[in-house]
Amino acid sequence: MIKTDILIIGAGPTGLFTVFEAGLLKLKCHIIDALPQPGGQCSEIYPKKPIYDIPAYPEILAGDLVDRLMEQIKPFEPGFTLGERAETLDKQEDGSFIVTTNLGTQHHAPVVVIAGGLGSFEPRKPQIPNLDIYETKGVEYMIKDPEVYRDKKVVIAGGGDSALDWSIFLADVASEVHLVHRRNEFRGALDSVEKARELAQVGKIKLHTKAEVKELHGADTLEAVVVKSTEEGVEPKYVETDYFIPLFGLSPKLGPIGSWGLEIEKNAIKVNNAKDYQTNIPGVFAIGDVNTYEGKLKLILSGFHEAAVMCQYAYQIINPDKRFVMKYTTVGGVEGFDGSKKEAKKEVVQSIV
Amino acid sequence: MIKTDILIIGAGPTGLFTVFEAGLLKLKCHIIDALPQPGGQCSEIYPKKPIYDIPAYPEILAGDLVDRLMEQIKPFEPGFTLGERAETLDKQEDGSFIVTTNLGTQHHAPVVVIAGGLGSFEPRKPQIPNLDIYETKGVEYMIKDPEVYRDKKVVIAGGGDSALDWSIFLADVASEVHLVHRRNEFRGALDSVEKARELAQVGKIKLHTKAEVKELHGADTLEAVVVKSTEEGVEPKYVETDYFIPLFGLSPKLGPIGSWGLEIEKNAIKVNNAKDYQTNIPGVFAIGDVNTYEGKLKLILSGFHEAAVMCQYAYQIINPDKRFVMKYTTVGGVEGFDGSKKEAKKEVVQSIV
Ligand SMILES: Cc1cc2nc3c(=O)[nH]c(=O)nc-3n(C[C@H](O)[C@H](O)[C@H](O)COP(=O)(O)OP(=O)(O)OC[C@H]3O[C@@H](n4cnc5c(N)ncnc54)[C@H](O)[C@@H]3O)c2cc1C
Ligand SMILES: Cc1cc2nc3c(=O)[nH]c(=O)nc-3n(C[C@H](O)[C@H](O)[C@H](O)COP(=O)(O)OP(=O)(O)OC[C@H]3O[C@@H](n4cnc5c(N)ncnc54)[C@H](O)[C@@H]3O)c2cc1C
Repeated sequence: MIKTDILIIGAGPTGLFTVFEAGLLKLKCHIIDALPQPGGQCSEIYPKKPIYDIPAYPEILAGDLVDRLMEQIKPFEPGFTLGERAETLDKQEDGSFIVTTNLGTQHHAPVVVIAGGLGSFEPRKPQIPNLDIYETKGVEYMIKDPEVYRDKKVVIAGGGDSALDWSIFLADVASEVHLVHRRNEFRGALDSVEKARELAQVGKIKLHTKAEVKELHGADTLEAVVVKSTEEGVEPKYVETDYFIPLFGLSPKLGPIGSWGLEIEKNAIKVNNAKDYQTNIPGVFAIGDVNTYEGKLKLILSGFHEAAVMCQYAYQIINPDKRFVMKYTTVGGVEGFDGSKKEAKKEVVQSIV
Repeated sequence: MIKTDILIIGAGPTGLFTVFEAGLLKLKCHIIDALPQPGGQCSEIYPKKPIYDIPAYPEILAGDLVDRLMEQIKPFEPGFTLGERAETLDKQEDGSFIVTTNLGTQHHAPVVVIAGGLGSFEPRKPQIPNLDIYETKGVEYMIKDPEVYRDKKVVIAGGGDSALDWSIFLADVASEVHLVHRRNEFRGALDSVEKARELAQVGKIKLHTKAEVKELHGADTLEAVVVKSTEEGVEPKYVETDYFIPLFGLSPKLGPIGSWGLEIEKNAIKVNNAKDYQTNIPGVFAIGDVNTYEGKLKLILSGFHEAAVMCQYAYQIINPDKRFVMKYTTVGGVEGFDGSKKEAKKEVVQSIV
């Protein structure tokens, strides 16, 4: 059982910054995310695109924003349960909560913060017979640890950035990389398209365009796929492989959170925005894209403010007898749980003669 | 009469970022500030100190934060009335407002946003007979344009960062710089203290410590000051000068805003934080440190969120018949009023064979 002060569901920008605000109040955090990496929409949907409305960043790539947030929260040593979906929320007699993931990992905390954005990112799956029986036996929808594919044969399907970028990356790791796409044209960043082209020309990526994976074969685990052309009169190809990775995008689904007894409106969680961003379940807060209230803006900067306000109230729940006096970071510095300390240089008081 | 869409009182971080959020909605802004430079508390009180809780900035100097905000809002060409205090607010028959400063400058806008922080920064004045009659005739409390002092004689009084830094700066501009301080010890950043010491040693700053300016002389404008030692038995010095600049700090006062009929609580303006940060006067909003509501945090990141939310409602007041559909900056880009356009690189759709 993982124990923490604040259990955060969602490692998007909002969930990440919550670790910082909580840390200033000396509260420890643990984050669950269905994705294998932190960053939410910024990492999953548009890591290489610029954002222009992060205050004091005239321009920042979404992926860099996530990196800066990770750097900022590092002193507060957040725990992470990645690649797992928070499935159930159980209120305990003492008012605390146990949150269990789809893989059975249990988390215990007095405060739960849902920073689940548009929902848990779930893969779009292709229509192929028996796909489900090969899941975890050679069929994967996300790449968590690329080392798993070292010296293995891999078939990737898809025509967007993820399919291109992972094909490029695995070309140097796997023994064979096949890239299967229904059309001739790929849609992606110019440099990804160019790099993939180079690798295809030298045979490091074996390209199957105007084609689809239509069959999966293998006694126990996956052993081969059948690639069929979308055009008439072309022979199907039987391709031996250890892995089949369809990368057709991940789409967010509010999912299990929808059945936790929370008040839901417009596919989002209603909160008390006049005060603490608490939901109708005391001790459960909802911040960032996942919440709704009159005038709500689904913007990154709003999640940051909501996190800061919410943490003050989380502090009161966790420390009912203490009173926290806010100190400016400039004045009080930042003391990490890792023993680090950042603070402004002291002024000197000196004669100048 | 200066005309604009949104008139902002206060050029602190909140007021500055408002220009950006308004600009995204194609609304033009003009800012009034009592200080000669933008940045509010960040520029006036702690420009060289680090802030640690600006989201995605593990560390940023307050002065750099202001520079980045100025860069971010540049495409939206805000107007500035600096060094003047907003004195009166007059509602017009058509619901718009005229705001007049202490120097009589008039501003006309359908929406007024008070981002006045802790109030208008007003100088702490020393107790010297006739001080007021020499104001604007040689006595200054803030340095707006250092070029005014080129080849002039200047007497600065004070023992903190401003007195040190301006003495250092003017040492190369003015023909003579005197620095008068009641004690021997100065309080400031180490490098300022060291630099001032060097300049004092080579006589480029003439130092008078354990001393105070006690008299002002001059027929019409200021011609000389009398510097008296705080110790017994030391002869007073008659120092000829064109300017006397006491830099004893600026302290914020809510000031005239307090009598505009706004609902005030704890020296701050009550707003509807559940919705739009509007005050009890329709069309007048209050955001950033200057407002108050349950759970209010006087943090920079809160002002940013409040600005974004508020601008949506300001838009509705200014364009009652239009509906604005929010677009992510990443998707819609940023179109400046100066003709500039920032946008994400387009994805390419290309064959890779
Ligand atoms: C193309 C695009 C451009 C954008 N441009 C901008 C912009 O310019 N400016 C701006 O401010 N915003 C922009 N946004 C919106 C911005 O990305 C979101 O506001 C922001 O990501 C919200 O952050 P969040 O942390 O609240 O949620 P998210 O980033 O959505 O993260 C939520 C995380 O929670 C996880 N999660 C949810 N439920 C569960 C569960 N049950 N178990 C485990 N994990 C779960 C999800 O997997 C996800 O990783 C853009 C969005 C897109 C798609
Ligand atoms: C030493 C110190 C350290 C701090 N550290 C942090 C930190 O680490 N993190 C953090 O988030 N915050 C910190 N703060 C607080 C932060 O600086 C404020 O929250 C922020 O400056 C508020 O911004 P604002 O734009 O709302 O108001 P301000 O910065 O106060 O700006 C308001 C402006 O309005 C002007 N004004 C007011 N009334 C009038 C009028 N009638 N006419 C003309 N002009 C007027 C004032 O002159 C001023 O320039 C710190 C503050 C101090 C003093």
